[in-house]
Amino acid sequence: MENDMVTMALDEVDLLARRVLTRHGLRGDHVDAVARTIVAGERDGCASHGVYRLLVAVNTLKSGKVDPAVEPVITRPAPGLVRADAGGGFAQLAIERALSALVDSARTNGIAALAVNRCIHFAALWPEVEMLVEHGLVALATTPSHAWVAPAGGSRPLFGTNPIAFGWPRPDASPFVFDFATSAAARGEIELHRRAGNPIPAGWGIDADGHPTTDAQAALDGAMLTWGGYKGSALSTMVELIAGPLIGDLTSAESIAWDAGAGASPYGGELIVAIDPAGFLGAAAAGHLARAETLFDALAAQGARLPGARRHANRKLSVAEGVRVPAALHRDIMALLEEEDA
Amino acid sequence: MENDMVTMALDEVDLLARRVLTRHGLRGDHVDAVARTIVAGERDGCASHGVYRLLVAVNTLKSGKVDPAVEPVITRPAPGLVRADAGGGFAQLAIERALSALVDSARTNGIAALAVNRCIHFAALWPEVEMLVEHGLVALATTPSHAWVAPAGGSRPLFGTNPIAFGWPRPDASPFVFDFATSAAARGEIELHRRAGNPIPAGWGIDADGHPTTDAQAALDGAMLTWGGYKGSALSTMVELIAGPLIGDLTSAESIAWDAGAGASPYGGELIVAIDPAGFLGAAAAGHLARAETLFDALAAQGARLPGARRHANRKLSVAEGVRVPAALHRDIMALLEEEDA
Repeated sequence: MENDMVTMALDEVDLLARRVLTRHGLRGDHVDAVARTIVAGERDGCASHGVYRLLVAVNTLKSGKVDPAVEPVITRPAPGLVRADAGGGFAQLAIERALSALVDSARTNGIAALAVNRCIHFAALWPEVEMLVEHGLVALATTPSHAWVAPAGGSRPLFGTNPIAFGWPRPDASPFVFDFATSAAARGEIELHRRAGNPIPAGWGIDADGHPTTDAQAALDGAMLTWGGYKGSALSTMVELIAGPLIGDLTSAESIAWDAGAGASPYGGELIVAIDPAGFLGAAAAGHLARAETLFDALAAQGARLPGARRHANRKLSVAEGVRVPAALHRDIMALLEEEDA
Repeated sequence: MENDMVTMALDEVDLLARRVLTRHGLRGDHVDAVARTIVAGERDGCASHGVYRLLVAVNTLKSGKVDPAVEPVITRPAPGLVRADAGGGFAQLAIERALSALVDSARTNGIAALAVNRCIHFAALWPEVEMLVEHGLVALATTPSHAWVAPAGGSRPLFGTNPIAFGWPRPDASPFVFDFATSAAARGEIELHRRAGNPIPAGWGIDADGHPTTDAQAALDGAMLTWGGYKGSALSTMVELIAGPLIGDLTSAESIAWDAGAGASPYGGELIVAIDPAGFLGAAAAGHLARAETLFDALAAQGARLPGARRHANRKLSVAEGVRVPAALHRDIMALLEEEDA
């Protein structure tokens, strides 16, 4: 039955991810780094960024659009800036290799930025935001993607789904972390509606003629819409600029042109900004972070949800009981291990 | 007739602003700094941030909640950080006094942040963003306000209108600049509906019982809503955190508690981040900024509007022909000059 689920311990997920990625040519520390984000996604209940992404990563490996073995190069172009040249590899290893330099720079200067350049990006942004939060830093991350989204007032794809992620450390609780697309929906959500044969909600997309549509395929062939009208469109433009030209990397339109129909994941840059609360506050940091807790308490008292809380609840459960993967998806992934021409 | 307009040259607006502010006790360089933002707002066609704000500023001066003569203190707590302690004065002079240190720090470190602390804030954020853009920097500014806005999933005021402003330098065009509230509407827009006796659109506010309302007064007495649901609510939370506790300053809830019904403008901090394109790009900066122009051209080709363009068009017109102020508003402002107890 298609509703069957396969229960896996997290170390089984990790082993499966490594086997699949290695089978399809990924090499060296890239295997660890990519597997780690896939395990983290599955563990936190983000189905679209869990083992499902193995299909996406393998597709990109097969396309020849990613260098499976390149070593990232980390440089410091200015006291507050770190650059990680991913050299055409997946983003994860470049981020991991640059992290300590970014943390050092933020602690020394109060604020610092990391540009990850020439990377293939298929993952969520919250893993790197959480890595910085674990060091007690406030973090912001953003990246363009492929040009799939029409600007407000326009009718043709120009922006990526252009996610923005933010993290804030909490001394005695899971961190405040959000990570959302500046498009009305994630592209994966529209894909899921298409697979299920369901219409998409109004406001998610327009067809190739620029007319509103609730047909998932028509929206994928036309354009997705930005979240929140003109304001969302302005934010999406900002993402194109600060994680594109500002760091010497591609816009979403340039990324999809580079792809040239190969169907690989987006290629370009990611900007990560880290701020050390001790920079402005010194020894008073703990007291001021406590006032942030008052804000979170007031949010909770109104019944408003805290972003990131559900992921962390799922995490506890997954560590204790493992994760449940749809049997059909599990079969598709196992089949990747059997392919002859990998 | 109430629709009558008074035409004023920009230097007349400036003189009027200075006279009104001085008449109500503002002193020293504060008069220049505050008048400048009011003239800029009127000049750019932002009616709610033009001479109308003289009423707001005078109201705050009368409340005793602002120090009309305090000298801002500028310090450098870390190589990438600048602090401007406004000491309970209006924000404008503190920002002006700190600007060159922020520009220097961004050029030296690649990225830098300015915390404006203990300031009374009633102005738009685009003036400071544009000041940085004129130095060739990319800039982001944000500030909490008073707790007027309910979080998504909540029903009571907790957030401010929490604007976010961003600016990007363009070599041969007016800069790309946006500045918008993370609430569904600006509070001033709801005030304007109330004055006109018009209902507000659904989605702008809820009444004191937490029910959706289209009654402007009921929304002002209840709570405004965030723009864009949960995502807007997450961004608004981020603003509270990074321009509140992170810089040792008040949240919107703390600001309105401090006000204690006086009806003064919000009190607290503002965070401004500046990034130097030459930091990551060096001599290649011009070439990469040119790729941003390709993005703007693509936006324009679709008929999408560029934020900031309308303001700059108004600016040209105002410089040439002056501005037109509603006669009733002009009378209200002139009356401020006649008050006996100022």
